Order: sequence, then C-alpha cells, then structure tokens
Amino acid sequence: MVETTRIVLASRPEGAPTPANFRTETAELPPLEEGQVLLRTLYLSLDPYMRGRMSAAKSYAKPVEIGDVMVGGTVAEVVESRAADFAKGDVVQGYSGWQTHDVAAATHLRKLDTDKVPVSTALGVLGMPGFTAYSGLLKIGQPRAGETVVVAAATGPVGSAVGQIAKIKGARAVGIAGGPKKVAALRDELGFDVALDHRAPDFAEQLKAAVPDGIDVYFENVAGPVAEAVYPLLNTYARVPVCGLIANYNAAGQPEGPDQLPAFYSRILVKSLTIRGFIQSEFVNEMFPDFLRDMTEWIADGKVRYLEDITDGLDNAPEAFIGLLEGKNFGKVVVKVAD
Amino acid sequence: MVETTRIVLASRPEGAPTPANFRTETAELPPLEEGQVLLRTLYLSLDPYMRGRMSAAKSYAKPVEIGDVMVGGTVAEVVESRAADFAKGDVVQGYSGWQTHDVAAATHLRKLDTDKVPVSTALGVLGMPGFTAYSGLLKIGQPRAGETVVVAAATGPVGSAVGQIAKIKGARAVGIAGGPKKVAALRDELGFDVALDHRAPDFAEQLKAAVPDGIDVYFENVAGPVAEAVYPLLNTYARVPVCGLIANYNAAGQPEGPDQLPAFYSRILVKSLTIRGFIQSEFVNEMFPDFLRDMTEWIADGKVRYLEDITDGLDNAPEAFIGLLEGKNFGKVVVKVAD
Repeated sequence: MVETTRIVLASRPEGAPTPANFRTETAELPPLEEGQVLLRTLYLSLDPYMRGRMSAAKSYAKPVEIGDVMVGGTVAEVVESRAADFAKGDVVQGYSGWQTHDVAAATHLRKLDTDKVPVSTALGVLGMPGFTAYSGLLKIGQPRAGETVVVAAATGPVGSAVGQIAKIKGARAVGIAGGPKKVAALRDELGFDVALDHRAPDFAEQLKAAVPDGIDVYFENVAGPVAEAVYPLLNTYARVPVCGLIANYNAAGQPEGPDQLPAFYSRILVKSLTIRGFIQSEFVNEMFPDFLRDMTEWIADGKVRYLEDITDGLDNAPEAFIGLLEGKNFGKVVVKVAD
Repeated sequence: MVETTRIVLASRPEGAPTPANFRTETAELPPLEEGQVLLRTLYLSLDPYMRGRMSAAKSYAKPVEIGDVMVGGTVAEVVESRAADFAKGDVVQGYSGWQTHDVAAATHLRKLDTDKVPVSTALGVLGMPGFTAYSGLLKIGQPRAGETVVVAAATGPVGSAVGQIAKIKGARAVGIAGGPKKVAALRDELGFDVALDHRAPDFAEQLKAAVPDGIDVYFENVAGPVAEAVYPLLNTYARVPVCGLIANYNAAGQPEGPDQLPAFYSRILVKSLTIRGFIQSEFVNEMFPDFLRDMTEWIADGKVRYLEDITDGLDNAPEAFIGLLEGKNFGKVVVKVAD
C-alpha cells in the first residue's frame, strides 16, 4: 500500500481563507486498476479559482466537500503504470490536487516533454493559466494591430501572457500590478508598453493618461477598483473577456450602495460593449493544440517570458495560497512537492 | 416660402418628461438646393431612444439642443424635388423629426413601395425597430432550434419581432408585457409560446415555471425588475443583446444600495454569459438588405404580424411619447401627421 499526505478542506472560509480552513492528513491509496497510474507529485499549482471551490455556492464547477482533498493541477512522475501509454519515469500534467501521491486514470493525463522547458511551466505559461490568456484574448478580446489592451495582475501567469500575446498581435499592452517591484518587472522583464501601480493614489488619472486612444480590450481577471478605473475609458465596441474576479472572491454578502449596476448596464448599451465570461475549458478542443504550438515557439523565440514564484513543501501550500489571494506572489505560484 | 410646424425641446426633463419639456412653433424652411427635396410628413415614429436624446449626458448620439426640433424617423411625401432619384409624389422614409415639413438631402432618404404594405410599417416592423430585432437577435442572440428566447415589451415593435423571428428559427418564445390586454395579444395575435404579465405579484415565479430548460437568449430592451427576474434563469453560454434599458431612462442619479454590480459580474463569469450592447446602425451595411427581403416575405406569409398604435395629429406627439415611456401604448407608436 502507498500512503499519500494530503491537505483537505477542514471548513469553509467566511471572507478570506485562514490556515484553519485546511488540515493535513495521510491516507492509503487503493491498488492500481487497469488503465490507471500511480503518481508522485512534483509540483502543485495554486490558482485564484480555488477560492471559489472552497465555497458551497453554486459556480461553474462543484465545490470541494468538507474533508475532501483540495483540487489543483499537478505535475507528477509516474511511479507505476497499468496504462498502455504511460511508463515508469514519465512526467505528466494531471489533477491530483494538494497531495504527495495519487492513483489517477491515464485518460486525464498529458505527457510532458522534459527536454525543452522546465516541467513546472505546464502549470503556468504552458498550462491552464497560459491557455486562459491565449483563448480569452484571441477568441473574445480579438486585439487588432494598433489597439490598446489593458490587463491587471499583470505579473501573474494569466496577465503576463495576455500582455505579451497582445504585443505579438501588434497591440499596445498596458499592464497593472501592485507595488514597485512588480511594476518594474512589467516594464523590464515582460515588455509591457506601460506599467502602472494600482496602489498609487492617482492610479485612475495615470491610467487615463496612459491610454490617449482609449481602451479596446480589457482582459478582466481582478474586478474591483481597477475595473472601476478601466470602464469609463473603454472605446465603442470594446471587448471584455471575463475570466476571474479576484477582488470579489472573498466578499461576504452584497456590498453597500449606491447600486452601480444601472450605470454599468447603460455603459454596455452606450458603448456597444461586449462583456463575455469564460472558462478556458470551453475552448480546449478547438484551441489547445494551437496554443501549445504557438506558445512553445514564442517562449523559444524569447517573445514570451514568464515569472514563477516557487514555494518549497506541500505544508506551505495554505500560506502560499492565502498570499496569492492578497497579491503577495510574484509570478505564477507553484508548490514544489518533491524533487 | 414653405412653413413648417414643429415641436422643439423646450427644456431638459429631470426624471420623466412632461408636456412642459416641449414647445410647438412655426418656422420658414430654406429654399431647395440641388440634391434636396421638400417633404410633407405623413407619419412620425415615436421611440424610447428619444428619451436619451433629451438629456445632455453623452451617449451614442448627440443630444438634441434646447430649442432644436425633436429628432425622429418619418414617412413623408415628396412635394418638390431637386434630386435625380426622387419625384413629386414619391413616398420616402427619412429623419425629419417632429415637424410637418422639411427640406432634406436625398442621400438620407429611402423610397418606399406603396403597394404591398401600409407605409407606416417603414417606421416599425419594416424599419428601425424591426431591424433592431432582426440584427440583434440573429447576430448576437443567435437562437438555435429548441432554445428558449425571452423578450419584454413584447407587444412593442422590437419585442414582437424578436419573438416571431425566434419562432421562425425554431426557438421557444417567451413574451413579457404589462397588463392582460397585452398578454392576450402576445398569445392570440403574435404567436408567443408563453405570455407573462410583469405586473403579476408572482411574476418571477411564473417566469421560472415557464422556462423549465432555462433561458438561452434574453433580448434586453427594458432592464429593471424584468431583468432581475431573468438573470438567475440564464443558462451557461446564454446571450444577452442589449438594445435598450427603458426602465432606467428616467432615472435621476444612482439608485440606493445594495450594490448589485459584483453579483451581476460574478454571474457573467460563472455562467460564461455574453452581454453585448448594440445600436442597429452598426449592422445596417451588412444586414439591412437581407432584413428587408426576409421581413417582407415573413409578413406576406403571415409569419410575422405587427401591432400599430396610431395617434392623430402632431400636437399629440408629446403626450403619446410620455405614454410610451410609461408603457401605455399598444404596439408601435406612430403619429399620423397628415393624410
């Protein structure tokens, strides 16, 4: 019998999650059945969407039940295989969640090329976050040469890819992040045309000055005050792909008035805006092979760069996740679970 | 010299317009120049968008200035022509506004066929409102066979066309209107599958019961309480073409809280909704010829019916317009200005 050490949901958070919402335990894994593999987790991805899964509220995916292992994308090594396409030693991208070992159906795994780029990128720029940027920006945002694209959380794995893909398509990329260190990285490492700090007291004025031709695409992954500053600057026919609302994730109950919905709705009409929510899985069948080909090439050519924020040890995952929701991370948050 | 009697904007309304916001006066028209025609108005169209033009607030079109003639689509007879393509006696659709006579550039006029259907339809089912329904529903709503389409103000010229085009495309049409007379017309004259009265105290429950498979397309032309009842019932990937927000047009200032925007925004994400504002003019070049062909055929085949609410005399236009914003009309509001 193989034992897994795992972090389960101990209780549902009210507002921001705390360490008490998580519990570490060990469990025995069942024996392998035909078509399954035994996995040893190397890297665990931490992503904002996980906050949604901790709540009981109905969303686009089922919540994690109390006592269940926290969900999450993983990179793992095959320890034992009863599946035709996988052999011991293969490195795969899967969804084992917050645990050290797993028995998984081979049909849900993708074999990784360990030669070209670090395998942890399969959780970031070459994985779900990178594909969120690629599919949402190209399918919904549709930036054209000369247009202006704005994205926040821009040192994160989604935002950084959005800005760099926008540049590849000939658009002007405006990146927003929190604090001078991140803002410097936007300009110096990630090639954004403009980098702004949303913590600046005059952020809204800075943004306005930075987009003399208005905003054509706002890739929405934060909501909150950044969105409030962006919306008045949207051009007629602007597109807003909505993939995340991190500022709202910890909100408990409806905020105080005034009610901003009627004014928001009027703006949609007056500016002929397109607001489109999406989850990357909608576009996987249609676009994932193109994404892997394009993004691998762009990374090789130096057109797309990425930042990783690696935490050592599964035990530190709750703290890293809480920090992610507070914007304390610097790049894609990955937990290194084993060598 | 030819004199026109016209209704001008006397003052901007605060909240709902009153008769005091309008003033009737006479003015001399300039002599005809080359390329122009002298028009005698037969019918004036009254439409909700005119409320927006009475306000100074920036919108998708310039406001009417104080003292200027109120804007509006018209059907008129050519009295005198200095334009090659138009002759005395021709009947045209143009934009003379709230007045009895006008000197207009021929380039802005469309000659009407006076044989097949009453010329007043060029202001309704075969005009801007019909085209708003056709373009918004087919281009943005994209109803598929078996899907459920919901529209309010459904006896009006936009809503009635939306429901009937949805039926032609094989969808299920749910119409919403105010009062038993309109609801009966939805079912008995306009062929909606379901007709609901938004004034019913249990309207939200009635709507829920009427859409067991949820709502795939909500054609938004009213906002307010109807929209609040519709949104929770939208299916994943539902489309919301937004062409009007009549419930909000008279609002002065921001309404009281709680702030419903964060919850609305979350719904866009969770349900992968498409919310898309539009003005029909966006689609004229691409779709207007198809619209005229299809709609003329559908009317001839009895697949599309229409209701007209005709008021006699330009003097009565302000009262008819105020009534329109209150939902007192029964079908497309047209003012008969002359025989």
